[in-house]
Amino acid sequence: MSAAAAELRGTGDLGVVIERAAGRVQVVDTTARTVLGTVEGLGDLSHASVVYSRDGRYAYVFGRDGGLTKVDLLERRIARRVIQAGNSIGGAVSQDGRVIAAQNYTPGGVKLFDAVTLELLADIPAAPGPDGKPSKVVGLADAPGRRFVASLFDAGEIWVIDARDPRSPKVERFRDIGKQPYDGLVTPDGRWYLAGLFGEDGLALLDLWHPERGVKRILPNYGKGEEKLPVYKMPHLRGWAVAGGYAWLPAIGRHEVLVVDTRDWREVARVPVAGQPVFVIARPDARQVWVNFAFPDNGRVQVIDAETRAVAATLEPGRAVLHMEFTPRGEEVWISSRDDNRVVVVDTQTLKTVATLASDSPSGIFFTSRAARTGF
Amino acid sequence: MSAAAAELRGTGDLGVVIERAAGRVQVVDTTARTVLGTVEGLGDLSHASVVYSRDGRYAYVFGRDGGLTKVDLLERRIARRVIQAGNSIGGAVSQDGRVIAAQNYTPGGVKLFDAVTLELLADIPAAPGPDGKPSKVVGLADAPGRRFVASLFDAGEIWVIDARDPRSPKVERFRDIGKQPYDGLVTPDGRWYLAGLFGEDGLALLDLWHPERGVKRILPNYGKGEEKLPVYKMPHLRGWAVAGGYAWLPAIGRHEVLVVDTRDWREVARVPVAGQPVFVIARPDARQVWVNFAFPDNGRVQVIDAETRAVAATLEPGRAVLHMEFTPRGEEVWISSRDDNRVVVVDTQTLKTVATLASDSPSGIFFTSRAARTGF
Repeated sequence: MSAAAAELRGTGDLGVVIERAAGRVQVVDTTARTVLGTVEGLGDLSHASVVYSRDGRYAYVFGRDGGLTKVDLLERRIARRVIQAGNSIGGAVSQDGRVIAAQNYTPGGVKLFDAVTLELLADIPAAPGPDGKPSKVVGLADAPGRRFVASLFDAGEIWVIDARDPRSPKVERFRDIGKQPYDGLVTPDGRWYLAGLFGEDGLALLDLWHPERGVKRILPNYGKGEEKLPVYKMPHLRGWAVAGGYAWLPAIGRHEVLVVDTRDWREVARVPVAGQPVFVIARPDARQVWVNFAFPDNGRVQVIDAETRAVAATLEPGRAVLHMEFTPRGEEVWISSRDDNRVVVVDTQTLKTVATLASDSPSGIFFTSRAARTGF
Repeated sequence: MSAAAAELRGTGDLGVVIERAAGRVQVVDTTARTVLGTVEGLGDLSHASVVYSRDGRYAYVFGRDGGLTKVDLLERRIARRVIQAGNSIGGAVSQDGRVIAAQNYTPGGVKLFDAVTLELLADIPAAPGPDGKPSKVVGLADAPGRRFVASLFDAGEIWVIDARDPRSPKVERFRDIGKQPYDGLVTPDGRWYLAGLFGEDGLALLDLWHPERGVKRILPNYGKGEEKLPVYKMPHLRGWAVAGGYAWLPAIGRHEVLVVDTRDWREVARVPVAGQPVFVIARPDARQVWVNFAFPDNGRVQVIDAETRAVAATLEPGRAVLHMEFTPRGEEVWISSRDDNRVVVVDTQTLKTVATLASDSPSGIFFTSRAARTGF
């Protein structure tokens, strides 16, 4: 720990940038637009994701190799680290910040950890898939009522996990929800859980206010479709924007963003865009929706005007744009360009670049403001 | 500064409770549900309000006596303090956290300050009212685009202040918006500004996406009405809940909460409640709306089910309930009971009290999660 790192400071304007190839994170300050330091030794960070402690001091980094690392942003060091599975793809933090949940591929299941100590509180094995092995778990998200929701890829189920007593969680199972759910999200208001289906078209929708009504299928034309378009990269559902009463969804295989009315979950518009969308993210005030793309269009970012539902601007912030993260109130957006080894900070009103930070193959960017939001 | 106060820690779970009679704030921790310490010497804190620095370390406390105090939550001391007016009623912080705006009664106007130093950047005198004196300024709120919006009580105007260059702000004036606007709010998505009118019924509405369309009048029956009901306390508009596409408004003088569809700003329902509502606040996930009341019903708090639009529970957390503040993701709510000298923490799912903190005539409660939100 350096002297500078021990400086007393607030944590509301901090964040991390994943340097995926180096197994390292940069700790960043969004007020000064600087890198404060780095923390190494986090293992395989391809497809890494991050959630935050309630106080914003600690980042919980989920690595692909099953590593769960608690990083102290103030002291810039690893506070705790456990290898909790053989192959993992992310996790969530409970509404009250007390429980960390990890979703695992190998062996498939969900594990609950104490957020302070990383002590294992519960190990929930997944239902088996057609091959008899525990199903891969995907789409894990937090929901109000200290619940988690997740999807079982092989078993075709959605699970609602009540973690009020995290040592003996209660699991409510929804079966036959569709073939191969591959990702899921909880809407920012905490009411809806949606799972994308890899094995068929449509989406699975669960009303968390009314789990007794069961899982419904919506948007029957959403998916790869009968034409079996080449899909370069399945879009991230977690990036889906839900804003102003509408959900903005990346089409699969098509150069389109779909607009869906969340009052009845029907499609109301399609916005033509520059490539196959990967992340579709609303600016916090919902005035703009930002989109990045799969190869070969991954050097561009487009800004959709949420009112006119048309592309208002096309930016070229760098090669291989992997992620975008808005500052807490949305005046700027941080964009990672993996192949140009940089993070670009753009003013969302003028669309001008206001800062550029050197970064080693950056991928995900995660700010501490996520700690106060549902479904991240 | 005590040794404990210098402890390195995150600021995402901190907040302040106003001890109005003592001119003091308590610094609180919502994870441990404790008072970490107090900071004194803040002057007249009746009707005080608070905004936060971008990093969550500093609370800017606006006192009734025109004092603007920057309180360091980590060191538990006053970092800066200026007396910026003779009589003041609150303020706001810009989208990027760099500018603090204060709205003043005497002399009427808006002042902009550097958030770090509290240096005066601009002094915007208000337009005169019928008596020729600068109008009192009310309803000041931040909006996207580094703007502030405010209402002029005596002049009957709404001002949109572009503070991108805070040393020479640009003011756009909307005249004849209605008689005596007494408070205002910006919706959480940053799109709409609403001003309540004291001098007539109805509300003034400005679409900040389209200021060129001008101010419209909505809800013509909202107000004191022709019967001239006795109004024990004008409700706080800033507490208004906008959630799930609906706005929940305290009726004036009536024992009702109004539900308004924000897509067309028409009233869709009225919910009977136990008294004249003062604060009407949605839980962050919008599943519940909590209401407190004016004298003589100020010992009760009611919980409205947002779906059925009916009162689901009535609580009696103490005498003279003045304010309620939800934890960032809404699992608990902190309620101030002035006359019982305590703050009660309630689990919003079970509605059970989970902690009680001693406090000297507590009024407003403000958590640092406000720093990341628009319109606070």
